[in-house]
Amino acid sequence: MAVNLPPVTDLLPVAGVRVGTSCAGVKQNVRDDLVVMSFGPGTHVAGVFTQSAFKAAPVTVCQRRLEGVEPRAFVINSGNANAATGARGVEDAERCCARVALRLDVPAESVLPFSTGVIGVRLPVEKLEHGIDAAVQRLGEDWAPATRAIMTTDTGPKAVSRRVVIDGVDVHVTGMAKGAGMIKPDMATMLAYVATDAAVEPSCLERLIRDANATSFSRISIDGDTSTNDSFMLVATGAKAVTIGSARDRGYRALKQAVTDVATELAQRIVRDGEGATKFVTVTVGGARSSREALAVAYTIAESPLVKTALFASDPNWGRFCMAIGRAGIAQLDTTRVSLHLDQVCVAEGGMISPRYTEALGAAVMAQPEFSVRVDLGRGRAEETVWTCDFSYDYVKINAEYRT
Amino acid sequence: MAVNLPPVTDLLPVAGVRVGTSCAGVKQNVRDDLVVMSFGPGTHVAGVFTQSAFKAAPVTVCQRRLEGVEPRAFVINSGNANAATGARGVEDAERCCARVALRLDVPAESVLPFSTGVIGVRLPVEKLEHGIDAAVQRLGEDWAPATRAIMTTDTGPKAVSRRVVIDGVDVHVTGMAKGAGMIKPDMATMLAYVATDAAVEPSCLERLIRDANATSFSRISIDGDTSTNDSFMLVATGAKAVTIGSARDRGYRALKQAVTDVATELAQRIVRDGEGATKFVTVTVGGARSSREALAVAYTIAESPLVKTALFASDPNWGRFCMAIGRAGIAQLDTTRVSLHLDQVCVAEGGMISPRYTEALGAAVMAQPEFSVRVDLGRGRAEETVWTCDFSYDYVKINAEYRT
Repeated sequence: MAVNLPPVTDLLPVAGVRVGTSCAGVKQNVRDDLVVMSFGPGTHVAGVFTQSAFKAAPVTVCQRRLEGVEPRAFVINSGNANAATGARGVEDAERCCARVALRLDVPAESVLPFSTGVIGVRLPVEKLEHGIDAAVQRLGEDWAPATRAIMTTDTGPKAVSRRVVIDGVDVHVTGMAKGAGMIKPDMATMLAYVATDAAVEPSCLERLIRDANATSFSRISIDGDTSTNDSFMLVATGAKAVTIGSARDRGYRALKQAVTDVATELAQRIVRDGEGATKFVTVTVGGARSSREALAVAYTIAESPLVKTALFASDPNWGRFCMAIGRAGIAQLDTTRVSLHLDQVCVAEGGMISPRYTEALGAAVMAQPEFSVRVDLGRGRAEETVWTCDFSYDYVKINAEYRT
Repeated sequence: MAVNLPPVTDLLPVAGVRVGTSCAGVKQNVRDDLVVMSFGPGTHVAGVFTQSAFKAAPVTVCQRRLEGVEPRAFVINSGNANAATGARGVEDAERCCARVALRLDVPAESVLPFSTGVIGVRLPVEKLEHGIDAAVQRLGEDWAPATRAIMTTDTGPKAVSRRVVIDGVDVHVTGMAKGAGMIKPDMATMLAYVATDAAVEPSCLERLIRDANATSFSRISIDGDTSTNDSFMLVATGAKAVTIGSARDRGYRALKQAVTDVATELAQRIVRDGEGATKFVTVTVGGARSSREALAVAYTIAESPLVKTALFASDPNWGRFCMAIGRAGIAQLDTTRVSLHLDQVCVAEGGMISPRYTEALGAAVMAQPEFSVRVDLGRGRAEETVWTCDFSYDYVKINAEYRT
């Protein structure tokens, strides 16, 4: 069902990053479901995590450990989210980390855990320990097996690379992500990992991840439902002879562009693979008084069930768009200044259907698998864009049959 | 698809109220789609309306006219919402009112217009004028034909009566409502009319409608989408020899109870008839620090697509409930104090699945067409209840095929 989800090709290895996978059999024994990522000494890591009050145990452990020693490894399982599992969930996550630390001969505190899958069920730690042993033996520079091992309801893997030359050195940026439902990242999304072989100082890396996240994972919504496990991690191994010490360094802008490109591409691929998605839609709201106002309207449109079913039906339903704009909580909106475009077609202006508009024009735009919805509020200069998908029979089918 | 929607039986006439219907042919010529309600002299009317920035033309006209002379009639059409129609929409609504005024020999300003149906399309005024003439000729005391004429995607009419004795006088309260989708009333819902033959002073009537609305129409959500046309009107004809001058009068409490009963029953029937609904679910959140906090969690649960698809699947999915609780924006929530009950079955306590809980117990509750979800946040004494329904294949089907 995915909408123009590109296959994973030409992933660049990242010097200082090794990746191994195995089948731990968390839910079934049919495919790999465990990933170990190992980083060389001197690596710096930054992360952003879900704002959910029901943070999963691995998120709690990650956030605590990021304040301590530099991470040397990640351990990631699919099939079980280790969320709503209480103090035992934290112990289970720590036991998995300890096994990785033992096999890699690094401090236990330097291993960060990540989980995705069923919520509220205890992690099968013994299975995972066996899986960790196997994954460590398969560590190598190829990310491709890991892009599949982290999947849950995803129909395909999401990964992309960028190459950028900084100070004459060839720097690689490679990222992978998973997620197809329970997607409205609140600061971060369900499991995304981006690594570079440049060296980036910790404070600079923090700024870099926040900048890249703000216009990528924080601008997508599939169903408005924020996960308990969202994590976006940025790894800088420093294995290449390029050091970025501050945002004023010459290389910062080039690296930020590459990391943001990778993060945005991954975020859009998550939406393309949205549960049941048949359309990939770019919603832009301009003419707003503030970024906050533009985002309020954009998300109300992107998450309205009535708009999303109209997107599914390829129905250029001006009534549902103005319903969503109307309920977005914008005080003193002058609706006679509001306009709506579908791609280049002007559907409404001055708060009413445009005299030049015909249903055939709107329907032709919406028959495409990808198009843009552009609203102008006519009251300011702020503009924001979010990406979303439609609401189909298959969304209901997938979520009435799958136990998250 | 409606969930235990009771048939309309034993509606009580309200002295001073006459109702007439006709087929104006707004969309089709197969059924009545126009209603005129006429009130005797001395009638007082109060209303609450949608908070949407895209208020429909009839809402604008109603709000303005309620500040002037006492209303003597309502004119209601289904099939066209007269919303997002600009200044011409206001003129069209006023023309319909003028025709009613002419036929009833009352001031034009004393007629209030209401519309429901397709958004963004001009009202077919000439058809409506003919329909108004016919409806006026059929004015009588029976509300039943009107309960059907105001329907759009509703599968059945919603109306109910209460009888209350005040100061030895038999007072009637009768109400009708329509609505099945685009239902998250923000102060009011899509077309609800409640009338009593008691006399109620205007300021007292204002208080009565706000009190009744707060715990009825303002506590339901089908899809989280607020309409452009929501209107809840309370009519007191004063045709019976009972006068309520203030909230301190002996009869106020009895009348308030009857009006609130009627409004709550109508609101619940709208949810029972929710588009594609197969479950009627009462969501109660207690142990909150404030009413606002309890409502935030209750609405996040009631509107989460992942919770709603789990309700459809009869899947007692603790993970999705804690996802929704987690993203409801409650600061510093101690999740280890959160519990969840489905009817009397304790699913989770202390933030985790209860040791006594089995899937079979939860599944048995959710297999019923009606059940309650009760969350306790364990941090205060405030409690609120909202009513909602599930999200089924038919919700998508109805909204992918119907042009609102």
